Parts: sequence; structure tokens; C-alpha cells
Amino acid sequence: MSTSTSPKLLRVAVVGVGLVGGEFIRQLLAFPAPSPFRLVSLTSSSATLFDPDGLALTPDSFKQELATSHVRLKPDLAFLVRELAALVRPGQDAVLVDNTASEDVARHYPQFLKAGVHVVTPNKKAFSAELRLYEQILAASLDSGARFLNEATVGAGLPVVSTLKDLIATGDKVLKIEGVFSGTMSYIFNEFSTGKEGGPSFSSVVAVARTKGYTEPHPADDLNGADVARKLTILSRCIPTLRGGLPAGYKSVATRSLVPPALASVDSGDEFVARLPEFDADFDALRAEAAREGKVLRFVGVVDVESGVVRADLEKYSVTHPFATALGGSDNIIMFHTERYGARPLVVLGAGAGAAVTAMGVMSDLLKLVY
Amino acid sequence: MSTSTSPKLLRVAVVGVGLVGGEFIRQLLAFPAPSPFRLVSLTSSSATLFDPDGLALTPDSFKQELATSHVRLKPDLAFLVRELAALVRPGQDAVLVDNTASEDVARHYPQFLKAGVHVVTPNKKAFSAELRLYEQILAASLDSGARFLNEATVGAGLPVVSTLKDLIATGDKVLKIEGVFSGTMSYIFNEFSTGKEGGPSFSSVVAVARTKGYTEPHPADDLNGADVARKLTILSRCIPTLRGGLPAGYKSVATRSLVPPALASVDSGDEFVARLPEFDADFDALRAEAAREGKVLRFVGVVDVESGVVRADLEKYSVTHPFATALGGSDNIIMFHTERYGARPLVVLGAGAGAAVTAMGVMSDLLKLVY
Repeated sequence: MSTSTSPKLLRVAVVGVGLVGGEFIRQLLAFPAPSPFRLVSLTSSSATLFDPDGLALTPDSFKQELATSHVRLKPDLAFLVRELAALVRPGQDAVLVDNTASEDVARHYPQFLKAGVHVVTPNKKAFSAELRLYEQILAASLDSGARFLNEATVGAGLPVVSTLKDLIATGDKVLKIEGVFSGTMSYIFNEFSTGKEGGPSFSSVVAVARTKGYTEPHPADDLNGADVARKLTILSRCIPTLRGGLPAGYKSVATRSLVPPALASVDSGDEFVARLPEFDADFDALRAEAAREGKVLRFVGVVDVESGVVRADLEKYSVTHPFATALGGSDNIIMFHTERYGARPLVVLGAGAGAAVTAMGVMSDLLKLVY
Repeated sequence: MSTSTSPKLLRVAVVGVGLVGGEFIRQLLAFPAPSPFRLVSLTSSSATLFDPDGLALTPDSFKQELATSHVRLKPDLAFLVRELAALVRPGQDAVLVDNTASEDVARHYPQFLKAGVHVVTPNKKAFSAELRLYEQILAASLDSGARFLNEATVGAGLPVVSTLKDLIATGDKVLKIEGVFSGTMSYIFNEFSTGKEGGPSFSSVVAVARTKGYTEPHPADDLNGADVARKLTILSRCIPTLRGGLPAGYKSVATRSLVPPALASVDSGDEFVARLPEFDADFDALRAEAAREGKVLRFVGVVDVESGVVRADLEKYSVTHPFATALGGSDNIIMFHTERYGARPLVVLGAGAGAAVTAMGVMSDLLKLVY
């Protein structure tokens, strides 16, 4: 009988209790018994709860506890590294789940991993930053055997990173990855460019997207393309031949910003949206030109493995292309062109943003650590 | 430091050396060193090779060895169960990889699992047969902790079974699964029904598909819908509320056969294809009716979780539906409608048949057992 396959106990320390963090905690606490997971720590921007035997929290109580518990500690990542490392033994693992978007937390991953603590996160910062941090993470993981999993950094709950890893691990040759990686950009161009010469103004679409909460408070944070460049960096680093590229991470990705240069220094989201109409004519011209060619505009990311080119750009696709026909709402779509799949790519399509589906991507990584 | 996460040694016994089996062995032997896999047994219809320390085989030599080696044994599954069970110890697992389509091998899974030997397979027979065999497999797996993985039974290398399992394990509510699950049916209707009233005759499309090797030697084995019914059975049994359904397995699925009753008893594939034109008018009428409604014909599988209805049927979809716009060649497409994904489903699309992508699905399951 194989007992080595029965799930191990996994102690879970969660940092970040925002939308994704809260939803993740709900999914973790709702996991059917007997659960292999034990929530031992919870950290917000202002407090940490820690109990190696498990915190007695409910989906409704954790915020209250963080705010009022008399055993609260000041947030301290070095403390977490030490305490979690002490809990790791054969058959009993520990994992840091970073549900923040914090650069600071990301820079601590190598310490957690060196200490044998797994790291699971939807936080794009670490793997899309400069090559050096990425290499430190790999080295620390290799050294201790602790794993770094970040499925939810690309496409949220969609099987994107795991599919790419499977393609590579089973010996397929990835030729090109092409997709719409930003839910915000997807919504904006699905509304703005439908193949007709006319349509709503670019600024009006952006304004609506912002009211619906589809954009960051400052839309320039979506329109600058950096989010797409970060996701491309994460994917390209899964590909052996590209691993050493992009020395400055997402900053090394050839990225077309849709922020008009004249508005680059506008710090207020409100002012940005108010002034965006000044540039509607430019976007109208691009849309009309595409329409005359029977095409739509889409903001896409491309990892061209053979040429080594990684770019985030506004490109034109035929009205019959899946980027035109299959996309709706704020869908992501990712096409994997590989040697095995040949002329017709492997495609994953669906919502690529949102707290519930992002938390699901994090949970699916957690499950990989216990089964 | 966590040593419990370093990959365990996995001894692999392969049954079946056909197209998929051969490709799988190539992928297994090509796995980059240090490989956690050790090929300890290989079984064809006529011989078995076994060496607990690993067989010295190359992608080019294994068929020859099976045919001529002086240490060949007669194929004997009971022998394999005993020998593999004896090799299972903490940190050292054993797995049966069944690359056959054999009902007999499938019926031995409970013995392998009870003995603590994992089972990985693209063989649909076991999980789509009667409820009793399925329950024996679950019980044996639960009892020993050995795992049964069958990603490649649905969509070959596409992430279908794993995505469904992740949706459920992370607490999403699956409402409906809808897709084109047969590469053969996909090709036939992508060619036959494009939204126009006319087009090539049904029999001519089937004949071409057969010449291209897209159909079974006897096309009725595709047109009867059984392959789709088997895949639907496998998926529905991943869904807790449906687990007890389909007592007779795929035979309990409401399946529309496209085999004309008058040809049901034709045993020869050649005669079947020769006589199929007699029924072209019926298919022409269906195509024309769909076209007049602005629709195409697709042979789809549906698992409607709320109503509990599982059906394989020829249905009509708008020419703007992804089943009409996104499909090509012999693609599979699978849509997961869930509570979290809401109005827009999670979609997986791509080649759902072929030795290389099927073997890839098997390899990806094998990787789950070691990392």
C-alpha cells in the first residue's frame, strides 16, 4: 500500500486580505473535511495573526479578529519566514500565500523558499521583475525543494501557466503564444472595435469601463500595457530558451502604451478621463483603417519563441479571427502554437480577472502541493 | 528545508505499444535527466518485458526487444499487479500506464489500485462503463491512496478533466458542460454544415474523413455517438451530484446515433460507406433547415448538471456561436458554464485526438504523481 500518496498536512500563511485575499480565505475555509490545509497565519497591512495549531477563524470573523484580537502582532515577514520554516518537516509542509500586489512581499520570496516554505501567489511582481530576482527565486526553490506556483498571475483561474508548463514538460515545442491578456483591454476593444468604421468614442468606452470598475482608478495604469508586459514576462520565463531574456523583466518587453504622451504626467484619474476625448480622433482613425481592411483592433501580447520577440501591442485581426469572434465582456484568450498542435493552436478562453476566479487559481496551486 | 517535496521515484509499467503507446514511450524516455521515471515493464498483446531496476530500451529498440528478447514473458496482468505492488514503498511509487483501449485491462484497475499502484490511462473503457466498476475503482483508490488519473480520456492533451476537477475542488458550482468532444464528428460537421443551405454530401464528407484516417475503419463506430457518450460519462462522474447517475455508464447517456437504422447491421466499413449515399437526402434536409434558421449542425455532448440530463446529440447553433466560428479541422471545444464564470463560460479549444497530444495528456498525469 502506498501511504506516500496520502495528502500531507499543509500549513497556510496568508498575506493580504483584500478582495482576492478575502475570497481565497473563504474558499480555503470552505474546503470539505478532512481538509489537508491548516490556516496558521493571516496578515493585513496593519496586523498579523499567527498560531501554528491553526487559527479559529470564519469567513465572517477574520477581518474583525485582525482588527481587534488581543494576540495581534505587527506585520513582520522575517518573523513569518522563521516561524513557518520551523513548522516544515516530512509530510508537513508550509506555504506562504501572497494575495497582495506588493513589491516588498515579492522580494521576500527567496527567503521563504530557501527556508523550505512553498510560495503560491497571484502577485505578478516577483516573476515579472528584473532577471536577478527571478533567478534568486529559482535557485532558492531548487535548493530547498520548496515550490513557487503562480497560476493565477496569468488569466486568473484559467489553466494558462499549468498548460504551458505541461506542454514543455512533456516535450512539446512551443512556437508562439498569442493572446488578449488584459480583461480591461479586452473589454475596451471588444466595445470599441467591432469591424465597423464607426462606433462609440474611445474615451467614452474607457469612461464606462472605469465606472463599471473594469479599470484601475487611474485608467493609464491599464492603458500603459504594463500589466500585459508583466504577464508576457511570466510566460516567457517558463520557456527554457527564453529564460535568460528580458533582463529588466516587464520593462524589457516591447510595449506599446495607449496613454497619449500629452497625458503621461496627469496624476489624477478624473483629469485623465476628462482630457482623453482630445485624442479620440486618433483612435477613430485607427479603427476606421482596420475596418476598411476587414479587421478589428485588439491589444494583444505575443511571445514569439523562435525570434525571441516578446511584445505587447495594438494589432489588427480579421473579423473572422477568434480574437474578433470568440471574445466578449472582459474575456482573456490565450493561443498556444506548438509543434504538436500544428496548424491549429491550443486555446484557453474565459474571464481572466475577478476575485473569485483569481482565488480559484490560487487554490488550484495549493491543491498541487498536497495531492 | 522541505525534503518531502523532492520528486519521488516512480516506476512505470506500460501496457500497449500502439500509436499512443509508442509515442508515450518516446516522451517518457526523452524526459530530461534527472528523470523521476523508471520504465520497469512493457507489455504488448504478445509479450511482457519486466525489470524492477529499469528496462534498457530506446525509442527505436522497444518493439524489437518485445519481439525477440530472450527474457520475454507471456502478458499477465495478475503478475504485473504482484510485481508492481512489491515495489511500492514510501518515496517510491509504481504506476500502471494503460495505453490500450482494452476492456480487459480496464477491469484490472481495481486490483492495481488496491495494491497501491497508481493507474494513468487514456483508455475510456473503465470510467465510462457500468457504475459498479467505477465505484470499485474509487473504493480501491480511496483504500490505498493510489491515484487514478485519466486526463487524456477527454480532449486528449487539452486540459479538460483537470480543469473540471479544479473548478469543483475549489468550490465553484458547475452548471453545464457543453462541447464538441469527437474530433471525427467535429471534422465531419465543420465540413458538412457551414451555415449555407447547400454543400458537399454527408456521405462524401464521411468518405473523405475515412480516407484521411479521421474515422475508425468502420465509420459507424464514430457515427453511433458512443465515443461522445463515454466522454460525457467520464466528465459527469467528476461532478458530485451526478456521481451516482448513469448506472450503465455510457449506455445510460441519451445518445443520438447518426447510423441509419437500415445500415445498423452492416459489418463492413467499405459496404457502409458505399451505401451511405442512400441517406444523403436526410442529412441535406437537416442542413438546409438549420441554414434557413441561420444555424449550423454540430454533434455535441451536454452535461446539464441542474436537470441531471446527459446527452449526445446533433444540435443547431447560430453561425455566430463559437461552435460555428471557432472550430476547424478536427478540433474539440469544451465550454464550462459555472457559477463563478457566470454568463461567459470557461472554454478550452484545440485538437482532441492524435497520438502525440494524447500521449502528452498521459505524461501530464504522470507528472502530477511526482511533483
